[in-house]
Amino acid sequence: MNISTEQYLSIINESLDKYIKQTEENETDCLLESMRYSINAGGKRIRPMLLLEFCRICGGDIYKAVPFACAVEMIHTYSLIHDDLPCMDNSNTRRGKPSNHVIYGEDIALLAGDALLTLAFEIMFREDTVGAIGESKVIEISRLLSSKIGFKGMIAGQVLDLKNEGKEIEIEKLKIMDERKTGDLIVSAVKIGCIIAGADEEKIKAAETFASSIGLAFQITDDILDVISNEKDFGKPVGIDNVNKKSTYVSMLGVDKSKELVMSLTNTAIESLNNFEQDTEFLRDLATLLSNRKN
Amino acid sequence: MNISTEQYLSIINESLDKYIKQTEENETDCLLESMRYSINAGGKRIRPMLLLEFCRICGGDIYKAVPFACAVEMIHTYSLIHDDLPCMDNSNTRRGKPSNHVIYGEDIALLAGDALLTLAFEIMFREDTVGAIGESKVIEISRLLSSKIGFKGMIAGQVLDLKNEGKEIEIEKLKIMDERKTGDLIVSAVKIGCIIAGADEEKIKAAETFASSIGLAFQITDDILDVISNEKDFGKPVGIDNVNKKSTYVSMLGVDKSKELVMSLTNTAIESLNNFEQDTEFLRDLATLLSNRKN
Repeated sequence: MNISTEQYLSIINESLDKYIKQTEENETDCLLESMRYSINAGGKRIRPMLLLEFCRICGGDIYKAVPFACAVEMIHTYSLIHDDLPCMDNSNTRRGKPSNHVIYGEDIALLAGDALLTLAFEIMFREDTVGAIGESKVIEISRLLSSKIGFKGMIAGQVLDLKNEGKEIEIEKLKIMDERKTGDLIVSAVKIGCIIAGADEEKIKAAETFASSIGLAFQITDDILDVISNEKDFGKPVGIDNVNKKSTYVSMLGVDKSKELVMSLTNTAIESLNNFEQDTEFLRDLATLLSNRKN
Repeated sequence: MNISTEQYLSIINESLDKYIKQTEENETDCLLESMRYSINAGGKRIRPMLLLEFCRICGGDIYKAVPFACAVEMIHTYSLIHDDLPCMDNSNTRRGKPSNHVIYGEDIALLAGDALLTLAFEIMFREDTVGAIGESKVIEISRLLSSKIGFKGMIAGQVLDLKNEGKEIEIEKLKIMDERKTGDLIVSAVKIGCIIAGADEEKIKAAETFASSIGLAFQITDDILDVISNEKDFGKPVGIDNVNKKSTYVSMLGVDKSKELVMSLTNTAIESLNNFEQDTEFLRDLATLLSNRKN
């Protein structure tokens, strides 16, 4: 049975809420609030939705996949909180709202990021989570995820981003950077969905192609919007890349060629869905929607 | 067979070195260097040694426990790097050397901390690690560790520390704070050693008593040294707690009563070792050494 975006959002949001709940010590409430603030600050839930939907179209039970979907969203959120800190991108807004550290202070924001990363692992090892999919799959998923978000994966991408700020770099290098910085987590999300469903190698490969294509398309769209959008629509300041002298797809290819690349990547993503027997309308729509987004 | 401190140090240091190794992308070398810098900045390796030794005295194979010992040391190191950042304790030295961010900048230091936390999990799920002790124990350990270092454990302790700076607090509250901030990780370390060896509940309880007692004794000794030591011996600036108007065991109990408490905790720790059949000389000596330390 198909599941709508609204149904997914409600499943994901309720579960995230359940996992980040009150402790006995009131004095640490600010930490919890800070974690909740960024978790609920308007994220599109793309990664957890992809995880659940790939689980579904591979014939898996999405409810068994929910803890992992939440874990992936927590990891994404932690990376954004740390990214926005003054010592990193120094960004005061995120999705049109004040960044975490603007509200809670840098110290609590830093710790909220640490805590979300840790909680992502914690919920994967809960007895109910492990009971639902078995120890082997939990280990396989943890192995995949921890290697993709670490010093050879997502964090490497952030370092490359820092090191290349203000430098002219080649497009191949930019691609590697984006693969690490955003692609690795998106690809992990879809693979986790497939693993939970017990999908075969062919399906996992197709899911990877889908994820890496829309991941890159997403990043290029971000670069395009930074040039052609306005702050109100985009939800964050525009023209930032130019001010920071950042090499982007747009600065290297121009707006038109960048848009063409987004189209072509979106088509590749949609074609990869032919490898699945179940209805893939949700994913087709999502890929199209993301390539046409305004924020 | 008994193992000496030197042998433990060499096993732990070689393994840590192996886990933090070169990637293909030279541009992220600074991240790796930053991770290595703090990992090799003179830590006493107390947590990994305790983990290995409890594994040994419970009849376990210490070589199967080495990845977990390294994971615990990485987590400890990540917490120190983040703790020293300007937005946290703003400490420019650690163990007599410049703090991580002083050398590598705040951005890389932040990411090195994130990367060490992530790597700690990564090495626990490697095929060789899982193959050695089995999936169930890896899951049990991951569950324990992730819950003890998160928003209800170690990170809660750091929040309590931040919130209570400059405030007069009760000794019971100080104890809870220290239990979270440093005790939870030390207790986790010994429990992990016991779990790997397949120890029974009674031994695990005794190991916990040992760890929580020396953990608290360690913290009180730190407070004492802050008052009676000098920067050269202590390896970090002294008198800091007074400047920061921090409530400490010394400010509440005075130096003499604090020293008595350290003695009594050390005795409790040593008594708990009666629950083990194997030779516990190493742990007795360690407990005594820590209570008499000058830095």
